[in-house]
Amino acid sequence: MKKIGKTFKIGGDVVIRDVYTIAGPKEAEGPLKDKFDMVIDDDLWGEDSWEKCELKLQKTAAENLKNRNNLLNSNIDLLISGDLLNQITSSTYAARDLELPYIGVYGACSTMTLTMGLGAMIIDGGFAENVICVTSSHFCSAERQFRLPLEMGGQRHASAQWTVTGSAAVWLSNSGQGPKIKHVTFGKIVDLGVKDANNMGAAMAPAAYSSLNQHLKDTAIDYDLIVTGDLGTVGKAIVNKMFNEDNNSIESKYDDCGTIIYDIEKQDVHAGGSGCGCSATVFGSFLYKKLLNNEIKNLLFTATGALHSTTASLQGESIPGIAHCLGIEM
Amino acid sequence: MKKIGKTFKIGGDVVIRDVYTIAGPKEAEGPLKDKFDMVIDDDLWGEDSWEKCELKLQKTAAENLKNRNNLLNSNIDLLISGDLLNQITSSTYAARDLELPYIGVYGACSTMTLTMGLGAMIIDGGFAENVICVTSSHFCSAERQFRLPLEMGGQRHASAQWTVTGSAAVWLSNSGQGPKIKHVTFGKIVDLGVKDANNMGAAMAPAAYSSLNQHLKDTAIDYDLIVTGDLGTVGKAIVNKMFNEDNNSIESKYDDCGTIIYDIEKQDVHAGGSGCGCSATVFGSFLYKKLLNNEIKNLLFTATGALHSTTASLQGESIPGIAHCLGIEM
Repeated sequence: MKKIGKTFKIGGDVVIRDVYTIAGPKEAEGPLKDKFDMVIDDDLWGEDSWEKCELKLQKTAAENLKNRNNLLNSNIDLLISGDLLNQITSSTYAARDLELPYIGVYGACSTMTLTMGLGAMIIDGGFAENVICVTSSHFCSAERQFRLPLEMGGQRHASAQWTVTGSAAVWLSNSGQGPKIKHVTFGKIVDLGVKDANNMGAAMAPAAYSSLNQHLKDTAIDYDLIVTGDLGTVGKAIVNKMFNEDNNSIESKYDDCGTIIYDIEKQDVHAGGSGCGCSATVFGSFLYKKLLNNEIKNLLFTATGALHSTTASLQGESIPGIAHCLGIEM
Repeated sequence: MKKIGKTFKIGGDVVIRDVYTIAGPKEAEGPLKDKFDMVIDDDLWGEDSWEKCELKLQKTAAENLKNRNNLLNSNIDLLISGDLLNQITSSTYAARDLELPYIGVYGACSTMTLTMGLGAMIIDGGFAENVICVTSSHFCSAERQFRLPLEMGGQRHASAQWTVTGSAAVWLSNSGQGPKIKHVTFGKIVDLGVKDANNMGAAMAPAAYSSLNQHLKDTAIDYDLIVTGDLGTVGKAIVNKMFNEDNNSIESKYDDCGTIIYDIEKQDVHAGGSGCGCSATVFGSFLYKKLLNNEIKNLLFTATGALHSTTASLQGESIPGIAHCLGIEM
């Protein structure tokens, strides 16, 4: 069994060969502005709805990834993708145009590591040579689905996060050079009763803590960098507090994608970034390059998701959190 | 590479050890009435919403499967599940209570074979000994999410299908006796432009034809029985027509879960059954037992999904179809 504790062990080569990132206008004003492969100028990008813009983000990220690497559909075994929208329509309609065998997943903002973890296991299991993993989010489509009409101009909560407009497409392969996925830990649901959809960081932090703890206990690897996505300032502080209370501080080497993508003071994003596109674009534009450039030799990348729905919230349910970890080594 | 054409080959043992099924009151009046493991008396089952009833279906199916087989959480490596509701909340809230590492997928009514195909590859890849795959649907929660308020009492279209209230939990294992998953074909999206959410059979049939064709071409296996789920009478007729036009009729050994689960004439279900719970409960209560009892030696089981959303439909999009095939042998 390729497993230690609850963590799956990738014995062979699963190389992250390339990542293509596209970011929205607000993201392009943040600290990572020069690092994205492509930036769009407005929230519609020539489409007539935010949802159609979002599926175009996914489709373009995947197509540009293929083109940059001379990948043909005949070389690609599977497309694994997901997003925040009901029935993951950004992923599905992008998959329609990409014409690849398609696995759709739902993990809310944990989708990037969920798709990459699955892809790594399918490649290491001997089933595939090349897998494309894609995810996206869009501030406007997410706000109108999960919260309130943007046209209303409601005041945002201090603990609210700003859904990233962006997408990343990842090429996983059983050959070639680049950072390798070595360990995968799929999380359990953790739900400590937070019901406030404007405080996702607090809802997801205990799940992040649980999966990180499990992964670190199972692998006993001393990671150069541990990054969650997307807890924001509120959730990041809770994770630090939980580890500190264990006398097992990770603070000196821990960061969160939701706090990396924006200049939190200047960009008026309150607690930071969120959405599937947050950890996806931060990984592709920033963390992946740190590995490639040997600035770090290994990375524990843990995307986090809040798996509620508006219906469940209206029926009084709390917000279930989840976090999936990837141990990546250069 | 464990792959022939586009079909993944499961070389080792992936045994379908047991399936636990729960059906709703209408399903319990149909032809399979004596075959379900459990039947619920009304659409709420003691809960205060249909959505909470649906998650209880999933949770109970999984727990009863575990209890019947003396399975403990410590023996189970993964839970893979999905459903029709926004953000797959039935699956997520059931997973919260089941306390297992959780992979959520979205494949609409194709979910049963999507989860089982992934589970089979993860086991055959050497990562897991035991995986639980679960899906569900509920007539009332699906109608209010995708179509119209039930309280309105709108007239149903002749081509409309009736969403099955029910759930099935499947135990996949790398050891033991029972039917084995030998081949997995994940489908591509096929969308010929159908926009009528009251004619899902027509929207999904071309995807079913595409995946079936791919699987039969790749494996060249002469299956005793080929079953799609859930095309209903309209979609089933289209699939037969498409194969007949190829001079490659499958009619004599082909059936559809949507036409098996109800007495279509007497139960006023128009074109037949649909929903993730349709193929799931028909597989568990009927097809699986045919394999176990050696009535058939192999089965091509192909769940089909219509991957639209209400938002995409309102924005003028057509309905993308998908179908995932499992080749199962006794």
